[in-house]
Amino acid sequence: VSPEANYPLGCWYIAGTSDEVGRQLIRRRLLDRDVVLFRQASGAVVALEDRCAHRSFPLSHGRLEGDLLVCGYHGFTYDAAGSCVRVPSQDHVPYGARVDAFEVREQPPFVWIWLGAPGESGRRAPYHPSWLHEEGWTSWGGQGHIDANHLLIHEDLLDLTAAPFVYPEIAPPVLLSPPPLEVEVTETSVSYHRTFPSGRLSGWQAGATGLAEDQDYEQSESGTFVSPALWVGGWEVGAPTEHGDVHRLAWAYALTPAGPTSTHVIWIAARNWATAQPAITEYMAPRFEEFFRRRKSVLEAVQANLDGSDRRGVSVSADAAGLRAREIVATMLAQERGRAVLRPR
Amino acid sequence: VSPEANYPLGCWYIAGTSDEVGRQLIRRRLLDRDVVLFRQASGAVVALEDRCAHRSFPLSHGRLEGDLLVCGYHGFTYDAAGSCVRVPSQDHVPYGARVDAFEVREQPPFVWIWLGAPGESGRRAPYHPSWLHEEGWTSWGGQGHIDANHLLIHEDLLDLTAAPFVYPEIAPPVLLSPPPLEVEVTETSVSYHRTFPSGRLSGWQAGATGLAEDQDYEQSESGTFVSPALWVGGWEVGAPTEHGDVHRLAWAYALTPAGPTSTHVIWIAARNWATAQPAITEYMAPRFEEFFRRRKSVLEAVQANLDGSDRRGVSVSADAAGLRAREIVATMLAQERGRAVLRPR
Amino acid sequence: VSPEANYPLGCWYIAGTSDEVGRQLIRRRLLDRDVVLFRQASGAVVALEDRCAHRSFPLSHGRLEGDLLVCGYHGFTYDAAGSCVRVPSQDHVPYGARVDAFEVREQPPFVWIWLGAPGESGRRAPYHPSWLHEEGWTSWGGQGHIDANHLLIHEDLLDLTAAPFVYPEIAPPVLLSPPPLEVEVTETSVSYHRTFPSGRLSGWQAGATGLAEDQDYEQSESGTFVSPALWVGGWEVGAPTEHGDVHRLAWAYALTPAGPTSTHVIWIAARNWATAQPAITEYMAPRFEEFFRRRKSVLEAVQANLDGSDRRGVSVSADAAGLRAREIVATMLAQERGRAVLRPR
Repeated sequence: VSPEANYPLGCWYIAGTSDEVGRQLIRRRLLDRDVVLFRQASGAVVALEDRCAHRSFPLSHGRLEGDLLVCGYHGFTYDAAGSCVRVPSQDHVPYGARVDAFEVREQPPFVWIWLGAPGESGRRAPYHPSWLHEEGWTSWGGQGHIDANHLLIHEDLLDLTAAPFVYPEIAPPVLLSPPPLEVEVTETSVSYHRTFPSGRLSGWQAGATGLAEDQDYEQSESGTFVSPALWVGGWEVGAPTEHGDVHRLAWAYALTPAGPTSTHVIWIAARNWATAQPAITEYMAPRFEEFFRRRKSVLEAVQANLDGSDRRGVSVSADAAGLRAREIVATMLAQERGRAVLRPR
Repeated sequence: VSPEANYPLGCWYIAGTSDEVGRQLIRRRLLDRDVVLFRQASGAVVALEDRCAHRSFPLSHGRLEGDLLVCGYHGFTYDAAGSCVRVPSQDHVPYGARVDAFEVREQPPFVWIWLGAPGESGRRAPYHPSWLHEEGWTSWGGQGHIDANHLLIHEDLLDLTAAPFVYPEIAPPVLLSPPPLEVEVTETSVSYHRTFPSGRLSGWQAGATGLAEDQDYEQSESGTFVSPALWVGGWEVGAPTEHGDVHRLAWAYALTPAGPTSTHVIWIAARNWATAQPAITEYMAPRFEEFFRRRKSVLEAVQANLDGSDRRGVSVSADAAGLRAREIVATMLAQERGRAVLRPR
Repeated sequence: VSPEANYPLGCWYIAGTSDEVGRQLIRRRLLDRDVVLFRQASGAVVALEDRCAHRSFPLSHGRLEGDLLVCGYHGFTYDAAGSCVRVPSQDHVPYGARVDAFEVREQPPFVWIWLGAPGESGRRAPYHPSWLHEEGWTSWGGQGHIDANHLLIHEDLLDLTAAPFVYPEIAPPVLLSPPPLEVEVTETSVSYHRTFPSGRLSGWQAGATGLAEDQDYEQSESGTFVSPALWVGGWEVGAPTEHGDVHRLAWAYALTPAGPTSTHVIWIAARNWATAQPAITEYMAPRFEEFFRRRKSVLEAVQANLDGSDRRGVSVSADAAGLRAREIVATMLAQERGRAVLRPR
């Protein structure tokens, strides 16, 4: 059974990070399309269909000539709008020679892309977590690929009760007996929040914050399904930082489906304490890499075990937020398909 | 062309050996289902669907807690009947949370499993060769995987005229000019028997028995398609052992389809002479491994050459038993499908 | 999307080279069939379906016994006409036991094969370039596999405007501003020719001919789509060889589809100068290997980028010959399918 695509096209997704997009050509599979990304001399990011209009060679195998992209097969040359502006073997360019160009918006560290119906990009907007641009935070991140459907990853992010089983030695101990989630829904988002009874920190939490391992602290977690493209969440420890605020850890998972069972993931984390100490980032980063690796391992095993079906299974209270996210996506898909706003290929 | 499954579900198959099933979790693909196998503290073997009822994580990636199986994702916990008995994140277990449990019967060295319609397992019975429990025999074995349909393997086992071509240096020389097979059929089994004119032994037969390489001996072969799950056979050399009986070699091939072109194979061999001499087992075992390897190599080449079709080809007298086995399986399949006894998934 | 086969069966294709076909058995995939090739003691080449009529074992895994081919599974033995002439396990051969035999014509260095409707092979004929049998030429060649549809390769060969982009450092510099092609078509072939204004040679052309790198020479290129099986072409430099003729380079690409996106390629090149100097061949051969490797790399990227579709794309003047070749093949296919001359399998 080959699973059907279950991601809306009419949504801003994250195509890559500001750091990685530059003057070299990047090929990336996004929503089952091949896209080539690069940055113009002005700094603006360009995203084109990665398939020459002439004989379908990947444009990402070609080269930049100023702001023009030259195909590596016969030299067909494209501008940032996807129009072919030069065919070396003849004087004129054939009528209609162009490739799709996709609208891009950059909000560092993210490069957003619109792969839905052209002209509808204004109906929705990229979302930018405040801790990515406010002062008082320092961030780090990584990226990778998970061979699983994007909704399996969203569900996993929207319920941390897996943590004591998947990351037994690094999960905060208070997660072992969690109070119920408080879930808030809007038409297009789901948020959950949970305040734990005072409890110990895990070893790495203590190491990262400099707080005591043998004392109890108030802790709380929260998370939001912002859109099919983004999950953001946080963890707070009720002890003052050097600036007097509580310790806040924030992170985001950008999920961009490559296809029905394959998702490109970019994650970024930030903290509001010890922001000028790289040693703390170096301490925390490998733990977050490990979170990603275990999540990837679990979700790929789930996907492989589904045999291509979209089997749902029994649900429990802890799934409340994940189930609501599924409903939101199903509604987006139904609207999109009803309105037939698919971009013609 | 993707081949259709041609194995009856309503049949006892061999899931594994008594030796390998213990307190660790084994995942095995049986009749296109993923099954997790383990042994309870009491020694009883448990076989469950290897897919958590909650979010489809493989239970074989989890761990045992006494006789309970704890999922490695969110900790859903199952008893030997497949019922979920604990969900760590909440107080009650959702109604209907369970995975399929499969009936198991152990007759060492085999662990049998029933994957057909529940409640119909009594209509058939596992078969136990007498030489596996009678005194006066010693046995050894191995297992492996053949990427071929189970019926190709049965056909191969039910006709030894391939031996001089596939194993020219180890096939008994009397096989070069075989008398016709005597074939006996019942409604559900096929047996063949052939007594050769007196002839020489092959080098390894002489080495294994201590008999003379330059003398002629009466020899006979026999084999039985017991069920889609099992072939048993034997070879006799008409010379007395230390106990006065003729030399008898017996062996069994357990065939458990993993899918239409993939079969798990467990083989076991036994002899009635030199039963207390491990050196003779060490001498014979590598030859039997070599038989398995060549059989595997030939049958995988046949399967690959079928291009997914179930092309039959011209048959000859030596195929009589194999063809009858095919008819028996076809009848079992027709009955099963007519009666719609498929286990709901 | 699984692409449909778009090669006519009713056409002589090249199965292999005279050098490689001998007394060992070669298995080759040709037009989606498995064929075993060998040479009889008399020297005649035999091509049979590579699948025993009995149980489908590949005959290429067997062995030759004189001019007979013995299957490696049960010893079924075939003559050069594909008739089974011996079944070791019984006295008579079953009626109708045979495999397909394919008509072969050898014109060194090529072994041609007819895989179309039997009896129609006389309607077309293999084509033999004159420079392969005339005096005054010396040749060399190679072979390989390109995972692309044969028409993508034909198109690539029928238009050299890719050369400055794909082989920038080895393409003749005159190709950078090519005059228009002159294209000549017949019902079943397409030829193109182009004479360049006088210009420099590339470094390797000068090295191979001993001509000056800093002088201008008249140069011309030509090429012909002879049939779906063969492209031949040439390059001339208007300066006299030691024999007084102009320097002529000729080459041929034999394309034999293995399947819809996989083509076996045999190429051969020849020159009319320095024919007795192996050092010149050693100098030129690696450049031609490099041409093949880059062509392979480009065409496999194109094929992969088509996602299984036969997307055509925008065409330009330089595609005139390639488009005509596509029409010829489409006409051949339509005639063949209309007349239902497919060989029954």
